Amino acid sequence: MDQRSIGVFDSGLGGLTAVRELKRVLPTENIIYFGDTGRVPYGTRSDAAIVKYTRQDINFLKRFDVKMILVACGTVSSVGLPVLREEYPGLPLIGVVESASRAAAKATKNGKVAILGTNGTIRSGSYQAELKRICPDVDAIGKACPMFVPLVENGYTDGQVARLIVEEYLEEVLKFGADTIVLGCTHYPLLKKVISEVAGSDVTLIDVGAQAAHLVKEELTERGMLAEEDGSVSYYVSDNVENFATLGSLFLQCEIKEQVEKIDIERF
Amino acid sequence: MDQRSIGVFDSGLGGLTAVRELKRVLPTENIIYFGDTGRVPYGTRSDAAIVKYTRQDINFLKRFDVKMILVACGTVSSVGLPVLREEYPGLPLIGVVESASRAAAKATKNGKVAILGTNGTIRSGSYQAELKRICPDVDAIGKACPMFVPLVENGYTDGQVARLIVEEYLEEVLKFGADTIVLGCTHYPLLKKVISEVAGSDVTLIDVGAQAAHLVKEELTERGMLAEEDGSVSYYVSDNVENFATLGSLFLQCEIKEQVEKIDIERF
Repeated sequence: MDQRSIGVFDSGLGGLTAVRELKRVLPTENIIYFGDTGRVPYGTRSDAAIVKYTRQDINFLKRFDVKMILVACGTVSSVGLPVLREEYPGLPLIGVVESASRAAAKATKNGKVAILGTNGTIRSGSYQAELKRICPDVDAIGKACPMFVPLVENGYTDGQVARLIVEEYLEEVLKFGADTIVLGCTHYPLLKKVISEVAGSDVTLIDVGAQAAHLVKEELTERGMLAEEDGSVSYYVSDNVENFATLGSLFLQCEIKEQVEKIDIERF
Repeated sequence: MDQRSIGVFDSGLGGLTAVRELKRVLPTENIIYFGDTGRVPYGTRSDAAIVKYTRQDINFLKRFDVKMILVACGTVSSVGLPVLREEYPGLPLIGVVESASRAAAKATKNGKVAILGTNGTIRSGSYQAELKRICPDVDAIGKACPMFVPLVENGYTDGQVARLIVEEYLEEVLKFGADTIVLGCTHYPLLKKVISEVAGSDVTLIDVGAQAAHLVKEELTERGMLAEEDGSVSYYVSDNVENFATLGSLFLQCEIKEQVEKIDIERF
């Protein structure tokens, strides 16, 4: 038993889709969430910037003596985590790439998987490399979808604009013949309905935040580090405490009643 | 005569639309441009974050002993500048709000002006207040257009997606009967064609970057501070030196051949 909290962070609020699943599968865990709303989005930044921001995010969460960190951000998991993992021995860092790739390898029947992600994620080739490692026969392509985050953050999760952009980004993916699509950014589940309509019901969509939450459960169970008692969630952001509850509840799919605290991430 | 440089900054690359005009009307001036590409966009941040980022941007440019700063960002001009102006006595800070409001007041025939801007700009009511000050009879409304920056930065400056979003944002503006629309963010001139098609040819569009460049010329002339000889431009960004030349040339409408330097803006 380990009552210490699980740290979760994302470039912004997309990571709350992972918190939602975490609360469902591990209701006794205490969660500390950090959303870097002052510097979102990460997906369009350079690798150097992403690594720097990742280090600051981890350093902030480390202050709470967390027992594990779930990196609920496709871009950080792809670009920042591989570089930084060695800097934090003894602190388990769970990214979204490993668990989602595992789920995709299991789901595909024709061996063709597509990954949708930010520019940073797709540039890194992280999911493709992990898929190849798990299952060398799988053929994977990546497609950068830089408009998905602005669409989601501005409420275009349905309707003609969302549909046109989803159609454009999926054209190549569908031509490729993928039967499994990894939604490689924690914002993307909010576009699931439109993506599914355009891709067709035969295509399996992998929600990376949800998959990562399951991996956290597995790892904590294996290490005998599960918490007991009732869990709580604390929220920290680097900007805009006011907007957090409104936009955040979209991702979390329930009301956020907890206090939200603003911190200066550049100090870490 | 004053050979010192003019400092110009923006949250990202939109400010280059002002540099373009500055180079045209003041070819002998030396320009130092800073684009905060590591923290773009500002328009969705809180006022506190915008003020903090503005201070760092000005502090960076001050190191070059600039004779004047053109704030080529609608959000900074609306939110950061009014708070910070007093911190920099002796350093003329020219924002985009004053000159654009003046141009709009001059252009309108029916006294109805609309301002398109980021969330931060519209929340501030800066253009409306300035218009009221110049011309109390003018009736002005603001419309936040948070999707315009992502559209421009991802190349959607034409076509169906841009048109649908422009139509949505302009609906209220056209119902209001504005005969003059202020493009209150330096990104927006790249959507001018679509905005003009949707608004109709009777509506005058005010390009804030271009207007501000004219005000800079006026102020330097009045103060006897114009430079002679041939002018040059130096570029600084807080991220992504690689993408700068490609995306930047879209805004500047000519190739960027000069060296671009990356700096750590958080140190200022």
